[in-house]
Amino acid sequence: LIGVTAAFGLALAMQIDPSDDHLAQAAESLERARPTAVNLGWAIRRAGAHLRGCARSERPAAAFALADVMAREDVECNESLGEHGLALIRAAAERGDGRVSILTHCNAGWLATVDWGTATAPIYKAMQEGIEIEVFVDETRPRNQGASLTAWELSQQGVSHHLIVDNAGGHLMRQGKVDMVIVGADRIAANGDVCNKIGTYLKALAAFDNKVPFHVAAPSSSIDFSLSEGVSIAIEERDPHEVTHISGLDEEGVWRTISVAPAGARALNPGFDVTPARLVSSLITERGVCAASASGLAALYPDHLTIG
Amino acid sequence: LIGVTAAFGLALAMQIDPSDDHLAQAAESLERARPTAVNLGWAIRRAGAHLRGCARSERPAAAFALADVMAREDVECNESLGEHGLALIRAAAERGDGRVSILTHCNAGWLATVDWGTATAPIYKAMQEGIEIEVFVDETRPRNQGASLTAWELSQQGVSHHLIVDNAGGHLMRQGKVDMVIVGADRIAANGDVCNKIGTYLKALAAFDNKVPFHVAAPSSSIDFSLSEGVSIAIEERDPHEVTHISGLDEEGVWRTISVAPAGARALNPGFDVTPARLVSSLITERGVCAASASGLAALYPDHLTIG
Repeated sequence: LIGVTAAFGLALAMQIDPSDDHLAQAAESLERARPTAVNLGWAIRRAGAHLRGCARSERPAAAFALADVMAREDVECNESLGEHGLALIRAAAERGDGRVSILTHCNAGWLATVDWGTATAPIYKAMQEGIEIEVFVDETRPRNQGASLTAWELSQQGVSHHLIVDNAGGHLMRQGKVDMVIVGADRIAANGDVCNKIGTYLKALAAFDNKVPFHVAAPSSSIDFSLSEGVSIAIEERDPHEVTHISGLDEEGVWRTISVAPAGARALNPGFDVTPARLVSSLITERGVCAASASGLAALYPDHLTIG
Repeated sequence: LIGVTAAFGLALAMQIDPSDDHLAQAAESLERARPTAVNLGWAIRRAGAHLRGCARSERPAAAFALADVMAREDVECNESLGEHGLALIRAAAERGDGRVSILTHCNAGWLATVDWGTATAPIYKAMQEGIEIEVFVDETRPRNQGASLTAWELSQQGVSHHLIVDNAGGHLMRQGKVDMVIVGADRIAANGDVCNKIGTYLKALAAFDNKVPFHVAAPSSSIDFSLSEGVSIAIEERDPHEVTHISGLDEEGVWRTISVAPAGARALNPGFDVTPARLVSSLITERGVCAASASGLAALYPDHLTIG
């Protein structure tokens, strides 16, 4: 999870200067790096509180020890989430011909989230169980995390997959080629609205229109119980250069950045969108699968009851 | 229109060899080039019939003369279509604050279709009338016709616009930033189903979900009255290389092709999708605006009544 990365970042900062001021500064700048991901703030608050309770001299070691604990917790959490998601894939395999095709968007695999990943955890669990899986990997413009990260990760794990442009998923669903969608989440509101990588909402609409189950796999640290609905999530506007330029290897294996737009073209680059809960079939978390609703979440997480 | 291009292609073929055999061969290979676009077959059949009625020695000149006539007809057709679409934009300007923001997908401008274009014709007409227009230009992966063609064309015409990735349109609609969508069409079925560049369907879903009007601008030569519904349109599967590689200018202005996927990655590349008529607010044609339905089309085109 991105939160664990931040905990390691805080540990590095403590190695440089373990003062209270620097701890506060490092926490603030790490949290600002990705305002949409609630898990980031959660990890930083947890690590910050722990470190403020330690003597300055103990902070560097304590910070690394805590980050390590958090990474292990993450692996367990994602594995548990994977087991719960596996049940959904197994049921789809039993309903159909044994082969399950899954569309995913962006990267919510082990490259982003330590072992197992979130959206990928059920897929890897299904592979282990011998279920035949085919994954459609959304390219995920503008940063191409699907093409560059998810496709690579799946090939390392031996999972059969095809890369597609973000435009293609709706057509594949209309053709009956997609059995389910599984994506991750940057933040889930208390009512089940899901904030995730830009374009997720379009796939949720297509899934709904074609009666394809749309599942969101995320640990409970991504659920923001203080947020009554997704509409109030601030969406990060990113650098337009990400839209107008793209990087990759040329035929000689040289890393190049090319422009894909006319010189001087203006671009808009919202980083995330919010998928309303009504389009989400279920949330897959480390405690189990629930409906994307306040009551669904409250049943799994009674300890996080929101105040009405 | 792509059909006019084909008429000029046939004229070039007649210059090389005006025989019946070569006429048939050239017509067939041109028609195979883009099986999804009905307008192409229409233009080739029209030019072919005309040329078969001419003496061989007259064919080269007759072919160019006909292509020229067809190009002029196209300009008139698109201008008329633009006038009808203008009425929709004008109404939106009067309902709102005078400024109209329009999202478009792919390129249906004058680069693809002689003067005016189809989806762009109403925009240029609105500009002439002094209506303030802002266009959101979908990049349109994998071939990036939005980024490379539409954005350039709009900048040449002085139309204010922003380039966005294909993933972003749904989010912008949720934010209330899009007043209408106007796209072109490769083929429209007799029931109003619209076959257009891959990804069009996803934007139609988002428009419907956000009550944003979704208009399709196309000349009647793109309407296939012989096709009862869009589901039977054969969708061209294109080269996976278009998905895994992308071309553009590097920082030194050198044209480069780079890979955006891991080596050996498999990709799927459907070229078009079908947007069901239920998601289309209206069809804008050279004869006027009509509902995307059999009765809507029959009212405007009683001469093309389909046999039930």
